[in-house]
Amino acid sequence: MWIDLIVTPLAVSEDELRDRTVVVIDVLRASTTILTALANGAREVVPVSDMSAASRVASSLDPQTILLGGERNGSPIEGYHLGNSPLEYQPEVVQGKIIILNTTNGTGAILRARLAEEVLIGAFVNLSALVEYLRHRNPKELILLCAGWRNRISLEDMLCAGMLLDRLELGGRWEEVPDGVRIAHLLYRTYADRLQQVVASSSHAARLRSLGYEADLEHATRVDSVPVLARYHEGVIRKIHG
Amino acid sequence: MWIDLIVTPLAVSEDELRDRTVVVIDVLRASTTILTALANGAREVVPVSDMSAASRVASSLDPQTILLGGERNGSPIEGYHLGNSPLEYQPEVVQGKIIILNTTNGTGAILRARLAEEVLIGAFVNLSALVEYLRHRNPKELILLCAGWRNRISLEDMLCAGMLLDRLELGGRWEEVPDGVRIAHLLYRTYADRLQQVVASSSHAARLRSLGYEADLEHATRVDSVPVLARYHEGVIRKIHG
Repeated sequence: MWIDLIVTPLAVSEDELRDRTVVVIDVLRASTTILTALANGAREVVPVSDMSAASRVASSLDPQTILLGGERNGSPIEGYHLGNSPLEYQPEVVQGKIIILNTTNGTGAILRARLAEEVLIGAFVNLSALVEYLRHRNPKELILLCAGWRNRISLEDMLCAGMLLDRLELGGRWEEVPDGVRIAHLLYRTYADRLQQVVASSSHAARLRSLGYEADLEHATRVDSVPVLARYHEGVIRKIHG
Repeated sequence: MWIDLIVTPLAVSEDELRDRTVVVIDVLRASTTILTALANGAREVVPVSDMSAASRVASSLDPQTILLGGERNGSPIEGYHLGNSPLEYQPEVVQGKIIILNTTNGTGAILRARLAEEVLIGAFVNLSALVEYLRHRNPKELILLCAGWRNRISLEDMLCAGMLLDRLELGGRWEEVPDGVRIAHLLYRTYADRLQQVVASSSHAARLRSLGYEADLEHATRVDSVPVLARYHEGVIRKIHG
């Protein structure tokens, strides 16, 4: 398995992701929110890049079945049913619904991977499920696409990518992999014994805390607490069954 | 001093660099080559982004005074006087010359910073000179712009940025800085006692070694061996005097 890591979506072209297996990692919060929504019964999640795309998708569907969710710069969007906090996506809210999700970084990263062979959603909350699936599939080329924040590298996404790499057990060949893979793995090994504290000290965590989303940090770092696999395919994200 | 770090030029817009102090770091090899050329007597270096820009600049100058230098994917460009190995830029070759430099990553990073207030060239070879200058100038906003490699994060540029950050002594406030700054500093602290070996084990070093540029790695990691300050201003890079 050849592996590469992208620290922010702008640094990769759609063409570089073509025909590859891509794991999109946006720990705070799109990946975590998508997985939580699907685990809690949402039928599917439609990632969109902006307000007008969200309106366009919404207008093509039965208003009774959809929920508009998302944020801009961490804050809810006026007129939307939900923000981007995973804790809002409770079973009684999302059961059977189609979520149209519009976020600053995460949904853009997912859309960028639209030419990939397979796009999976990655976060701490589904880490072991993802590792097991990737080991089974054993893709020839795997790209970990971190969402980052406004095109900057994010500590929490790199840590999650590093944990995934560590669990994939590449056989200690850390000097033969692309630098990004090696850096993510080193970050994880350095901070493995205090993931929650380190994520809570990241730049993005500080922003979320200032907006009142402290509880999201704990939810997003609870490893394997939402053990679902989710795949983006033909415009929508669904749970993988079986 | 507020500091941010960009891991690859594509991740930042020209506008985000406007009116800021920017240090462009391309350890392997553009920054190191530019500093070496200027230290060895080159009058100035004109960074260009592609072949046609190089030809355009060359045709506007006295052919006796110019040298065309650069590489594509690490290899020399046919018809150019020089490649991108700093060891080619010896005094007897570059004395009094204007170098037109065209490289895969580094010169593009420098050009991206054209709206900045001040653009400095950073590498291991001029680290202390740069630290001293930055301490003296004490810019309000400093951005470390790593060139990376084809828009991927590079270990050697992050290590050099980390060393610069370490020497700037931010007073231990590592949890209040952007994640990129923190990650670079952690990398440096982890590998500080074996910089040469770690740079030699990076993805880019492997590529250079396979092309026969092993000696460049040693030159590029000799801290403070080329103690010059160089500034990009109005299209050209010159030594800062005084």
